[in-house]
Amino acid sequence: MRAVDLIRKKRDAAELSREEIEFLISGTTHDRIPDYQIAAFLMAVVWRGMTRAELAALTEAMLHSGSVLDWSALPAAKVDKHSTGGVGDKTSLVIAPIVAAAGLYVPMISGRGLGHTGGTLDKLESIPGFNVNLRLDEFRRVLETCRCALIGQTPEIAPADKKLYALRDVTATVESPYLITGSIMSKKMAEGIDALVLDVKTGDGAFMKKQEDAEHLAELMVETGTRMGKKVVALITDMEQPLGRKVGNALEVEECVEILNGNGPGDLRGLCLELSAWMFLLGGSVKSVAEGRELAGEMIASGRARDTFREVIRLQGGDVRIVDDPGRLPRARHTARVDAPRAGCVTAIHCEKVGVASMLLGGGREKKEDSVDPSVGLVLEKKIGDPVKAGENLCTVHYNLDSRLVHAMRLLSESFEIGDHAPPAAPLVRKIIGAGEMA
Amino acid sequence: MRAVDLIRKKRDAAELSREEIEFLISGTTHDRIPDYQIAAFLMAVVWRGMTRAELAALTEAMLHSGSVLDWSALPAAKVDKHSTGGVGDKTSLVIAPIVAAAGLYVPMISGRGLGHTGGTLDKLESIPGFNVNLRLDEFRRVLETCRCALIGQTPEIAPADKKLYALRDVTATVESPYLITGSIMSKKMAEGIDALVLDVKTGDGAFMKKQEDAEHLAELMVETGTRMGKKVVALITDMEQPLGRKVGNALEVEECVEILNGNGPGDLRGLCLELSAWMFLLGGSVKSVAEGRELAGEMIASGRARDTFREVIRLQGGDVRIVDDPGRLPRARHTARVDAPRAGCVTAIHCEKVGVASMLLGGGREKKEDSVDPSVGLVLEKKIGDPVKAGENLCTVHYNLDSRLVHAMRLLSESFEIGDHAPPAAPLVRKIIGAGEMA
Repeated sequence: MRAVDLIRKKRDAAELSREEIEFLISGTTHDRIPDYQIAAFLMAVVWRGMTRAELAALTEAMLHSGSVLDWSALPAAKVDKHSTGGVGDKTSLVIAPIVAAAGLYVPMISGRGLGHTGGTLDKLESIPGFNVNLRLDEFRRVLETCRCALIGQTPEIAPADKKLYALRDVTATVESPYLITGSIMSKKMAEGIDALVLDVKTGDGAFMKKQEDAEHLAELMVETGTRMGKKVVALITDMEQPLGRKVGNALEVEECVEILNGNGPGDLRGLCLELSAWMFLLGGSVKSVAEGRELAGEMIASGRARDTFREVIRLQGGDVRIVDDPGRLPRARHTARVDAPRAGCVTAIHCEKVGVASMLLGGGREKKEDSVDPSVGLVLEKKIGDPVKAGENLCTVHYNLDSRLVHAMRLLSESFEIGDHAPPAAPLVRKIIGAGEMA
Repeated sequence: MRAVDLIRKKRDAAELSREEIEFLISGTTHDRIPDYQIAAFLMAVVWRGMTRAELAALTEAMLHSGSVLDWSALPAAKVDKHSTGGVGDKTSLVIAPIVAAAGLYVPMISGRGLGHTGGTLDKLESIPGFNVNLRLDEFRRVLETCRCALIGQTPEIAPADKKLYALRDVTATVESPYLITGSIMSKKMAEGIDALVLDVKTGDGAFMKKQEDAEHLAELMVETGTRMGKKVVALITDMEQPLGRKVGNALEVEECVEILNGNGPGDLRGLCLELSAWMFLLGGSVKSVAEGRELAGEMIASGRARDTFREVIRLQGGDVRIVDDPGRLPRARHTARVDAPRAGCVTAIHCEKVGVASMLLGGGREKKEDSVDPSVGLVLEKKIGDPVKAGENLCTVHYNLDSRLVHAMRLLSESFEIGDHAPPAAPLVRKIIGAGEMA
């Protein structure tokens, strides 16, 4: 088999066999195929796409390029949630404790933020002492003890993805829904889970701006996971404005604690309950989504989810006192406010701009190599539909350095649109894909 | 400027600026852009194509990656012919002496054969002693002395093409008409010529099987050359059967001598006269193609073209005696014949199969690294339209080794189709592109 022939086949829109895809991925992992051939292949995939069979073969080949975790000794289902990324998207920190508190296992391997979107690892690391870089044996110990564990990518998991992602990043081949599916699903399947709930974001603050693109990606991921024998469902959710009110790493942890305390913004709480409910349903804890929502609500109301959050922080070396005293989280030295230019009603919040503003303040990464400042970010004082008076504060900015403040403030001013009438309320969950008769 | 942004732009079908294309080509030539980014860009070009402005910028950037020869001191126009390659396509060896004998200069830089097609350099090297690897100062001396010189690629000419071609070859990006145009036209323009006649082959034995593809390529090359201030015309010519009767390196040289002696097959002679006529017209020697044909015919009839052929062989170190005694050319030890299975009329000769048969005998290259046997090949005893008797010889095979003879003989048997009626005669020149009011 020669790589050039397989590139030609894909270029000419023919279907590659499972063996051919395995040849390419194994050759990638073990450096038997040069980068330039892989790069040409990736661009051909961006062009031609993949059939469902090719995509399942790609995902399995990537999955088996490394270790697949085995939790078969654990006495309950292993479930996880994955989000395609957004602004203020902090549900993992709430959901993992809720679901674990109710008896399922959540072996969650997450990523870092890039560009306008945040990442779970950065949020967790704003908790003083929290260690996301556990070895697999430590990961196992935490998971066995408190039924959830929250870590970053390890070298053992899907090394083919690491190699491919690095190439995609420099060859403008990141955006292919097929390559995204292979990347996400191979890593998630390597967690050794039984079921996966996908939160596929759409709207201005998401990677998939158009709902049809989000639905296409969701369908690919659901079908790929299902072909691999897992229970998978995808929720297409709204990212036209930031989720919750807080954007920025420590600020988002603070908001998660609010939710676990039974408080916090309704949209964030609602989505956390919804995602948890689906995890319960797929994991076999409940018989309906409604029952799942109820169970998730109980985990919050009883304080059991908050206890589990404390426990996982403790087991991963973090300062548990932040749960009862969020003032112990890093906090920026200065605040500034964005004044409403007129009275009326917030009709839109340009979500990507809000994300970029947070990044400019130091809360996110422009390039992968950048470090983040855990303390900075912003608090939306008004969200879509809220009435405002002229001069009222729309958004509180938490910052340390002046250097890019002006730029960030300008973006935030531009983000808020104020009109005369509140727009009709948009549902947070726009569509559910892959539920079949379960819903 | 970042290569990844330019790849993305091409991927999204946007037009690159001249500066952006220069950045890519200069980065390629000087190894500032890694191969994997160039490979992804090449596949994006295969996908999206290029605008005429992009293509001219690409060709100029490739041209200026190396030296452009300067013949301004020479007292007549410099013209060349380029063929996209076929089977039995040996016109260069006839045309260069014809055109030089009439007073124009032909600084011809040619290539080697690959796959089913032959190459001018391989044919020339079947002349004992003939040296195609001249340095540029030797090339200049030969050209000044006999007005034509026939050499191979030098490191000074379009080094970007060398790099790009090596990558295209292993990334299944050879076939793009845009990349073909950039490659051919940059090398031809580097010859420092005033005018170029393109022989774009179409049909079973050509790279462009479909006439519309050949016409598209021809239009791209003509427009690119014209944008660069050169006179360029393209003849779309038939390659549904081998040109002439002989295929194989020494055999083809022998057939060229036949033409220069005023003999040889009519199709080959006709195409040589036609291409020479256009070179005369573009070079300003004549006022019409008809006049050009006449002039070319005179160069043959007077023996002056043959004298020039002798002269260029001598100047490039070859054995001039082959012109008067072609028996001095390398000759295979054995011959075999392909018998007609029935009586009738030859209705088709599958040209690519004939080319592959010659390659299998050792006359061509399967891979670039292969060497060729100058003596082997085949002589078509019958061509399309010829009547045949059952058992009559269709084709004489000249071979040295038995190893792949059976395979080659089977291909040749399959190549000939015999029917009851002769097909209508097909014109050799199907279309002329870029002639404008000249024709």
